Amino acid sequence: MVKDKVTSMMKPAADKKSVDMHQLLEGHSLIFASNRGPVEFRTDEDGTMTPHRGAGGMVSALEAALRGVNATWVASAMTPEDETVAHDSGGGAFAFPPEDPTYSVRLIPIEGRAYHRYYDVISNLLLWFMQHYLWDIPFWPDVNEHTHRAWAEGYQPVNELFAGELVKAASESPGKPLLMLQDYHLYLCARHIRERMPDALIHHFTHSPWCQPDYLRLLPPYMRNELVEGLLSCDVVSFHTDRYATNFLWCCRQLTDHPVDLARGTVRVGERRVLVRHHPISIDYQGLAREAGTDEVSRHRKEIRHAVGGRKMILRVDRVELSKNILRGFKLYREFLNRYHEWWGKVVFLAFLYPSRLGLAVYRRYIADIEAEVEALNEEFATKSWQPVVLEIEDNYPRSLAGLCEYDVLMVNPLFDGMNLVSKEGAVLNKRNGVLLLSENAGSFDELEGGVIPISPLDVEGGAGALNEALLMNEGERARRASELVRVVRGNTAADWLAGQVEDIMEAGRTT
Amino acid sequence: MVKDKVTSMMKPAADKKSVDMHQLLEGHSLIFASNRGPVEFRTDEDGTMTPHRGAGGMVSALEAALRGVNATWVASAMTPEDETVAHDSGGGAFAFPPEDPTYSVRLIPIEGRAYHRYYDVISNLLLWFMQHYLWDIPFWPDVNEHTHRAWAEGYQPVNELFAGELVKAASESPGKPLLMLQDYHLYLCARHIRERMPDALIHHFTHSPWCQPDYLRLLPPYMRNELVEGLLSCDVVSFHTDRYATNFLWCCRQLTDHPVDLARGTVRVGERRVLVRHHPISIDYQGLAREAGTDEVSRHRKEIRHAVGGRKMILRVDRVELSKNILRGFKLYREFLNRYHEWWGKVVFLAFLYPSRLGLAVYRRYIADIEAEVEALNEEFATKSWQPVVLEIEDNYPRSLAGLCEYDVLMVNPLFDGMNLVSKEGAVLNKRNGVLLLSENAGSFDELEGGVIPISPLDVEGGAGALNEALLMNEGERARRASELVRVVRGNTAADWLAGQVEDIMEAGRTT
Repeated sequence: MVKDKVTSMMKPAADKKSVDMHQLLEGHSLIFASNRGPVEFRTDEDGTMTPHRGAGGMVSALEAALRGVNATWVASAMTPEDETVAHDSGGGAFAFPPEDPTYSVRLIPIEGRAYHRYYDVISNLLLWFMQHYLWDIPFWPDVNEHTHRAWAEGYQPVNELFAGELVKAASESPGKPLLMLQDYHLYLCARHIRERMPDALIHHFTHSPWCQPDYLRLLPPYMRNELVEGLLSCDVVSFHTDRYATNFLWCCRQLTDHPVDLARGTVRVGERRVLVRHHPISIDYQGLAREAGTDEVSRHRKEIRHAVGGRKMILRVDRVELSKNILRGFKLYREFLNRYHEWWGKVVFLAFLYPSRLGLAVYRRYIADIEAEVEALNEEFATKSWQPVVLEIEDNYPRSLAGLCEYDVLMVNPLFDGMNLVSKEGAVLNKRNGVLLLSENAGSFDELEGGVIPISPLDVEGGAGALNEALLMNEGERARRASELVRVVRGNTAADWLAGQVEDIMEAGRTT
Repeated sequence: MVKDKVTSMMKPAADKKSVDMHQLLEGHSLIFASNRGPVEFRTDEDGTMTPHRGAGGMVSALEAALRGVNATWVASAMTPEDETVAHDSGGGAFAFPPEDPTYSVRLIPIEGRAYHRYYDVISNLLLWFMQHYLWDIPFWPDVNEHTHRAWAEGYQPVNELFAGELVKAASESPGKPLLMLQDYHLYLCARHIRERMPDALIHHFTHSPWCQPDYLRLLPPYMRNELVEGLLSCDVVSFHTDRYATNFLWCCRQLTDHPVDLARGTVRVGERRVLVRHHPISIDYQGLAREAGTDEVSRHRKEIRHAVGGRKMILRVDRVELSKNILRGFKLYREFLNRYHEWWGKVVFLAFLYPSRLGLAVYRRYIADIEAEVEALNEEFATKSWQPVVLEIEDNYPRSLAGLCEYDVLMVNPLFDGMNLVSKEGAVLNKRNGVLLLSENAGSFDELEGGVIPISPLDVEGGAGALNEALLMNEGERARRASELVRVVRGNTAADWLAGQVEDIMEAGRTT
C-alpha cells in the first residue's frame, strides 16, 4: 500500500539506526537516486507553492537514514513547480525539509516526450511487465519502431541525464560519495557514472522481481545486454529476495561471458568484482501504528464493522495492477462460494483498490474486467440482505488502514510481487488475529511463510480450499500465527534494510 | 514439418547405425513408449483394415534403430480399429510391419473421457503452453476444478496405464529391458515403473523446451512435484539442447531437496544418480531428398516458381501453433514493407500452414487472427499485379517440400521451439542458396547459428532489418552459409541422436 503523504517519520528505529549508519558510513556521503523523489512541489489553493512528501516505504526507509549523515537525493522533477524549484536553485541542490533541513535534493527537469518514453513505454510497459512475467507473448508485446525509439530517445538519454546529475552531486559532496540507485527506471545509469568516475562506489537496488534468463532473453540482444551490463557497472546489485538475486546471477551466467560464482553471489567484470545480494525491505511499523490510531481511521473502522455486520470479512488492498492477480482473486472467491454453500450470507469480500497507470490501455481494461467480474459475482450470489463483494476503486488511505485493522482474512495472491508491503502492514495492524492468505510468489513469502496459509497464484480451486481453511481456523491457531507474523515483521525494520545495503557496499569498497 | 505418412525408410544411415546399436545394446531389449505410435489402423474405402505408418521425425529415427535388435513399441490406441487390433492380440503385442516384422507393437485402449483429459486438457493445454511460456498469466490459465480433475482422472491414470503396459512388455522381453519414454505426455510414467521394477533402466526424452523454475512454479505444488519427481524416477532425463537440460537441473535444485550437480549434469535421488543430458534430434536427409525428388513435388516446384515469377520468395512452413510466432512473422513483414518501399512488388511471402489442435478454442482463434492479419496486409499493399502474401492453410506435404526447395528466404521465428525440424529440412532441400532467418529460441539455433541470420522473436523491427539483409545478401555469402548448414545437418543424423541416448543409459546402467 502506497501512502499519498508521509505524515510522520519513524522515530525510534531511525534514532537507533542513524547512529549505526553514521558509523557504517565511515565519513562517506550518501547520494540516492530514484525516479520519484522524496518531495513534490505543488501549487496550493491559495497560490503558494508547497512541498509534499513523496510516497512509499522506500521514502520512509531512506529518510530515516539521512539524519546525521551527509546526503543528497536526486530525482525527476515531476511537476511544473518542481521544475521551477530546480531552476531557482540554479540547477543545483536545495536543502530539505525546509523547516528542518537534513539532506539535499536535486530535481532533474526532463522533457515531456522523453519522460513518457522512458517512464511509460520502457519502464512501466516493457520492463515492469517482463520482470513480472506478464507478457502474452503469442500476441503481445511487439518490439517495434516505437519501442526502439523509446529506448534510444527516452530510456537511454534519461538514464544518462541522471548519471550526469549524480556525478555532479558526487563531485560536490564533502565525503567520498556512495551512490545508491533505485529500481528499474535506472538500470543504465551506473555505466555512465563508471565511465566518468572509475572509482565510484555504486549500489543498485531493484524493488521488483528479477526474471529468469529465458524471459529476459526475449528482449532484443542490445537491450538485454545494456540492462545487465548497466547493472554490472555497480559494485553491489541488490534485490529483495534470494530468488531474485539468484535469477540475476543466472542471467549473468547465461547472457554474458563474465565469470559468475553462484555460491558466493559474485560476478567478475574485468578487474572488478560485483556483489549480488538481497535485503527484504520492511515497513515502519511504529509510524504505521500511529497513522492507524487517528480518529479518521477509527471512524472508518466503525463504518466497516457496521457494514460487515456479524459476518466474516475477507479483505484485499491493492493498487489495480495485473501482477496483483486481482481478477483471479475474485474467481477464487466464486469457486469458494460454489463449493462451500454454508458460507453464503456469512462472509463479505471487501476489495479496496486504488487505480494507477491509467494512461496505459491495459490498466484501463484490467479495471473494466474487475468491475465486470464483481458485478457478475454479485448478480449471481447476492440476496436481499447480502452483497458478497464490496468493491471500492478509490485512493483512500485511512480506509485501507481501517480495513487492515479489521479483516478476518487478508487475501494477498500476486502472480509475482517484488515484496508486497500490504502483507506486512496487515500483519502488524490487524486486531482480530486475522489470517493471511499469501501467494508463494510474493517477495514477503520467504519471511512470512511460517505464519500464513500459502496459495499458488493460478490455482483458484486450491485457493478456495485455503480460504475455507482460513475462515474455519480456530482462535488458538490464529493467535499463534498472528503473533509469529508480528514477530517477523518487527524483527526486520526498514532501517535494517538500509543498513544491510550500506554494509554490502562498504565491504565491496574494501575488497574491490 | 510433420509428415502424414512415412513412405520411405532411412536406409544407409540406419544400416550403419543399427550395427552400432546392436553392439551398444549389449543384448538389452528396447522398449519405447510414446502417446502416438508408429502405426495407426484405419478402415479403407473397400472395408479392409489397413495399418498406416505414424508421423514425424521421431518415428523414422526410432524405426531405423529397430532392425536387428529386440524391440517393442507401446502407444495409445488412436482409432477404433487400433482398439480392435489391441483386443485381437489379446491385449498383447503384435509384430510390425506385417510384411516384414522387425519389432512388436502394443496399443493401449484408453477410455475417451480419460484420454481427452490426459491429452487435451493437461498435455496440450497446460504442459505444452507452460513449457513454451505461452500463458497470459493475468488472465489465463485458471487451475480450477476442471484442471484438477483432468489431472486426477486423466493424466495420472493414463500414465499409470502406460506404466502397466511397459512393465508387462519388460517382463516378456528376452533381454534386460531398456525403457525409453517419449515426451510431455508421459512424465509420470517412470515413477510407477520404478515402484514395480526397482532395477529397471528408464530413459525419458522431452521433445519440447523445458521451462525455467519460476514458470514451472506457477503450477500447484503437487503437480509440479509429480512432474519433477516423475522424471527423476528415470536413470536418464534427456532434452534437445543444453539450455533445456540446464533448465531442468535448475528446477530440480529450486523445487526439490535432491543434491544437484550442475557441472556434471546429475541429480542424486537417494541411492540413485540421475543423468541429465541433451541430444539434438535431426532429420533423415537422404529419405527426405528422395521424397523431394518425386514428380509430384517437381510439379509443385514449377507451380510455385510460376506464381512467384521473377520475385524473391520468402517462405514459412509451420503447423498453426502459437509457439511458432506466425502472427508476429506477418507483423515483421508489414514493418519490412513499411520501411523498405524498394521491395514493393519484388517479394512474395508464401505461408504454408497446416492446421492442428482445432479442438482447442485458442488454436481456432489463432487461425482467425492469422487470416485477418494476412487479409489486412494484402488489402493495404496489394496492387493489380502483386499480392504480397499468399497464405495456404492446408496439409499438403509435397507442396511444403517444393517450397523448401525453392525459397530465397526461409522465416523460422518461433517464440520457443523444442528443435524445429523445418529449419533443418530447408537447409538440406533448398536449391537456391536460400537464407535462413532463425529465431534465437529455436532448439536448432545452437547447431545452425553459424549459417543463419539470427532474429529475436519479439523484435519485429529488428526482424524487418534482418529480412532486408537476407534479401540483399550476395551470392558468395549465401553459398557459404548454405553449405555450412548442409554440413551441420548432415553431420548429426537421426541415428546419431538415438545412439547418443542409448550410450547415456548404458553409462547410467554401469554406474548406478
